[in-house]
Amino acid sequence: MKLRELHHIAIVVKDIGAELAFYRDALGLDARAVQDVPEQRVKIAFLPLGGALVELVQPTDDSSGVARFLAERGRSTMHHLCFAVDDLRGTLDRLAADGVELLDRAPRRGAEGDVAFLHPRAANGVLVELIDRASVKIKP
Amino acid sequence: MKLRELHHIAIVVKDIGAELAFYRDALGLDARAVQDVPEQRVKIAFLPLGGALVELVQPTDDSSGVARFLAERGRSTMHHLCFAVDDLRGTLDRLAADGVELLDRAPRRGAEGDVAFLHPRAANGVLVELIDRASVKIKP
Repeated sequence: MKLRELHHIAIVVKDIGAELAFYRDALGLDARAVQDVPEQRVKIAFLPLGGALVELVQPTDDSSGVARFLAERGRSTMHHLCFAVDDLRGTLDRLAADGVELLDRAPRRGAEGDVAFLHPRAANGVLVELIDRASVKIKP
Repeated sequence: MKLRELHHIAIVVKDIGAELAFYRDALGLDARAVQDVPEQRVKIAFLPLGGALVELVQPTDDSSGVARFLAERGRSTMHHLCFAVDDLRGTLDRLAADGVELLDRAPRRGAEGDVAFLHPRAANGVLVELIDRASVKIKP
């Protein structure tokens, strides 16, 4: 398995506009256009940062997992890390065979490409996502 | 201000050895040697990931801010994002003039180079560090 790249770090936020006022307007980062992702009940925006992206994720209702995550934290909070891998399906098979706990046993279609989440217990509490490199729609 | 690069994302962890068992041995990431940073009462290890680094930070006693952060969370948790800037001192002056809340009004020497932290309120709850690009000792 070649796994050498951080694709993105996701931050769950209350208000993407308030985040852009900081990251884009105060810090001077580039920001891509805000996208609505109705099937996940979120709006997202990407900040390209050299080799990786920061993904801002704003829940658009109270029913999603990220909405509950935000409600528990009460403020913008880093949510997960996403690494790019060359063969996601094969990687998941290998990790499962190695006893790594997976939330997604097979790739599923996400806004960024084909992805899978590991169980946070696998990384001692940190939520890790993998994305299939060939499927990546949003490039750093 | 040119600010285009994520330098690292720091994860505060209980046990770097358990983290390396996941990130290095199960996921297959590269890992650099564990370093002791006694003046900050932590051990650190870097995982190079293309353009950015993951920094694992393990408190070595209970007295530091990161030790209290870990005790409150009870598990490995993402702690801060660090962006590289070309002129850290000038950047801090400009941010202060713009009313951005800073924890460090001037650069200070860190294990990775000359750094400064913004107040988490500046980024709606996320802790952001800036590092002076010319001072960077640990390259992705």
